[in-house]
Amino acid sequence: MTDSTKAVEYVRSNGKRFLDELKEFVAIPSVSTLDEHKPDVRRAADWVATQLRSIKMKKVMIMPTKGHPVVYGEWLGAGKSAPTVMIYGHYDVQPVDPIQLWKSDPFKPVARGEYLFARGASDMKGQVVASIKAVEAIMRTEGKLPVNIKWLVEGEEEIGSEHLDEFIKKNKKLLACDFCLNPDAGMIAADKPTITTGLRGLAYFELYVYGPDKDLHSGLFGGTIHNPAQALIELIAGMHDKNGKITLPGFYDNVRKLSKKEHEDFKRLPTSNKELIQMTGVPALWGEPKFIPAERVGARPTLEVNGLLSGFTGQGSKTVLPAWAMAKISCRLVPDQTPEETEKQLRAYLKEHAPKTIKWKLTNLHNAGAALTNTESAGVKALSKALETVWGKRPYFKREGGSIGSVVLLQKYVGADSLLTGFGLPDDNVHSPNERLHLPTWYKGIEAFTRFFYNF
Amino acid sequence: MTDSTKAVEYVRSNGKRFLDELKEFVAIPSVSTLDEHKPDVRRAADWVATQLRSIKMKKVMIMPTKGHPVVYGEWLGAGKSAPTVMIYGHYDVQPVDPIQLWKSDPFKPVARGEYLFARGASDMKGQVVASIKAVEAIMRTEGKLPVNIKWLVEGEEEIGSEHLDEFIKKNKKLLACDFCLNPDAGMIAADKPTITTGLRGLAYFELYVYGPDKDLHSGLFGGTIHNPAQALIELIAGMHDKNGKITLPGFYDNVRKLSKKEHEDFKRLPTSNKELIQMTGVPALWGEPKFIPAERVGARPTLEVNGLLSGFTGQGSKTVLPAWAMAKISCRLVPDQTPEETEKQLRAYLKEHAPKTIKWKLTNLHNAGAALTNTESAGVKALSKALETVWGKRPYFKREGGSIGSVVLLQKYVGADSLLTGFGLPDDNVHSPNERLHLPTWYKGIEAFTRFFYNF
Repeated sequence: MTDSTKAVEYVRSNGKRFLDELKEFVAIPSVSTLDEHKPDVRRAADWVATQLRSIKMKKVMIMPTKGHPVVYGEWLGAGKSAPTVMIYGHYDVQPVDPIQLWKSDPFKPVARGEYLFARGASDMKGQVVASIKAVEAIMRTEGKLPVNIKWLVEGEEEIGSEHLDEFIKKNKKLLACDFCLNPDAGMIAADKPTITTGLRGLAYFELYVYGPDKDLHSGLFGGTIHNPAQALIELIAGMHDKNGKITLPGFYDNVRKLSKKEHEDFKRLPTSNKELIQMTGVPALWGEPKFIPAERVGARPTLEVNGLLSGFTGQGSKTVLPAWAMAKISCRLVPDQTPEETEKQLRAYLKEHAPKTIKWKLTNLHNAGAALTNTESAGVKALSKALETVWGKRPYFKREGGSIGSVVLLQKYVGADSLLTGFGLPDDNVHSPNERLHLPTWYKGIEAFTRFFYNF
Repeated sequence: MTDSTKAVEYVRSNGKRFLDELKEFVAIPSVSTLDEHKPDVRRAADWVATQLRSIKMKKVMIMPTKGHPVVYGEWLGAGKSAPTVMIYGHYDVQPVDPIQLWKSDPFKPVARGEYLFARGASDMKGQVVASIKAVEAIMRTEGKLPVNIKWLVEGEEEIGSEHLDEFIKKNKKLLACDFCLNPDAGMIAADKPTITTGLRGLAYFELYVYGPDKDLHSGLFGGTIHNPAQALIELIAGMHDKNGKITLPGFYDNVRKLSKKEHEDFKRLPTSNKELIQMTGVPALWGEPKFIPAERVGARPTLEVNGLLSGFTGQGSKTVLPAWAMAKISCRLVPDQTPEETEKQLRAYLKEHAPKTIKWKLTNLHNAGAALTNTESAGVKALSKALETVWGKRPYFKREGGSIGSVVLLQKYVGADSLLTGFGLPDDNVHSPNERLHLPTWYKGIEAFTRFFYNF
């Protein structure tokens, strides 16, 4: 079983049917956030289960959670010496509003030019079908796979994978695997196959500063009472130094340094400063001058103000000296920082710098660990080789600045790294009207996944 | 006419009737902010006009504004060599909510112990009646006054003297006077007659900092985009130095230094740090260490954050990098600062310190000049002598940290200083349930005002 020739031929000669089946799948309006679509969400789960059964997967089950169910399936016939690969996907989609901006019905898929237009075509029903069809190609031509596989296709990714934590925790034995193939991360351009090797973690806080018992008249008390908004501002301003470096004690101690090779990989990424400025509308970029923007987003931690509230915020003027001020503050973390350490550092900073003229309260609202995939692992090598074979060039290695629920949870409970990749493009309009899938890239993707399984 | 004996005797023998008339006045629910009380507000104006006519004032008129009317009256029979004193008052009152906390009906005045309980008893119908009764005592006993007087009794003080600017501007000839007696400022304690000699001015701004076109995902962009909330915080934090000094260029250049005598007057005031802490509930006081709290509030300028708003402020966590951040910022000003200069200084600071990574917009929402009454003026001397005669001690000179509409407007259009005094006490519950007037102090006040007119 070292030759993918037959399976790849199968992929190439069944493209039209694959597309018809994808059209069936995206026609199901499985919008997980809307109650009225609950039956549709279930239908989408059924559709995935039927597909898995049709390609001879075993133990195919629609497993309940407190929310939408998880579709599971497995094929473990490759034996103990072969790796076990989990394939992650989600069958739910985003809402379609504003519906009037769609050029065609989001749930009546239509091909125009090289694209298939439909909600979920790119994010990520197209990716789920690509995975299934790659496995189908091998099963139908060989009757078996070079590796063991397990499927985890959830229905709540678009609503924050709300019940996935409990599900994975409860089923960690069933889900045991060597690593996870997660095609939800997309690529940076149609001619640039991409593997995402890192995700930043998160530690999210709410900081309250309390001054007087109630709002005071700024004329009658201003000058004798430390304004809590002013105190909050002083505390937060001090969390960065003049060069934009974060001043929490020990904050950078566990930040893993970039190797020369990692730096070269970042430099190879095509994102230009000009593009970033155009995309965001800012007058100029900002950040640590020693790192390029892709590194600052992918491999450097941040401390960000997500929200501010104090005193009078309506129209006009009210001369209030506010009783309290609140900030939402979060840190994006990188290996080997942890949210727990970050909280300690933030508390230490506040204890050291908070003046005696106010009281403060810090609440930790959300934590997620950072993730980094070893680029020398068998999984990354296999995927890298498959992508290079199909695209004719070495894939691009990037890191995402955000967090992905399943990646963190699989690391936490199953100890499995995720191979983040996919065939969605930056201009696929995911989460927006007129979502689309670039079909030539999708077909290449199915072929790449087919080859991937042979690269172990 | 140099002897106040007869008039003072009249005051002493008519106390009960004065109180009955005050009860009539406070029984009128002239709540200026509530539409349903519009007829009551008008009745209160009528009541004042009737009183003025009954003591032989001339040209008594209820003069319309776009809101509630102003009651005017005059007696100019003292001749050109005598000073012309304006007497300011307001006949409107605050709402009574929360009504359930009142021990008796706010508009059914009742005397308990040494106090009269009713809305408006202290703020300031009691003070208006005190002024009227002092003049009545002189007119009824002498048939004439030692000075010329003009009355300006407005009906919108409790709603920000909204139409007083236009009224005084339009009638500045009619209102021409040497100075204004304004008994709306109260005293610091029943045994401490008080003259308020200064008010701080105000320059109120709204500062917006703009970053990206729309809210961004803090994971995908954090580290490359200057967070506008962070930028706003950095700008505002820089407006004070480590010692709490304001850093706007030239901010203190025109701040008039306190004379040794002024400093002594401030030190004589009884406000203790402990009381201020108890009153406000702060853990500790704050401010410029070189000045005592009364000076910091009365004679030193401030820069205060009145409101903050940016990004996500609801419950829980949302990892947004906000598109904008807003602060309401105001400066309390002291002589000889002006709001116009302050705006220039704030703009100069922002131009110098705003980074190129953001855009900003500053809007000036409200301006008011500072006021300082010359303590060597004939008016202050006359009032000071009258208070000393009645209380047996030199009055206390204080400055208020806030601004009073009529004081600023009379200075601006008529060129007249205000003599701020009054017989309300700090524990009169003004603007609160169970407002009350300390009757022994009130009777002393009527006598002091009677004597005041003879001290020129």
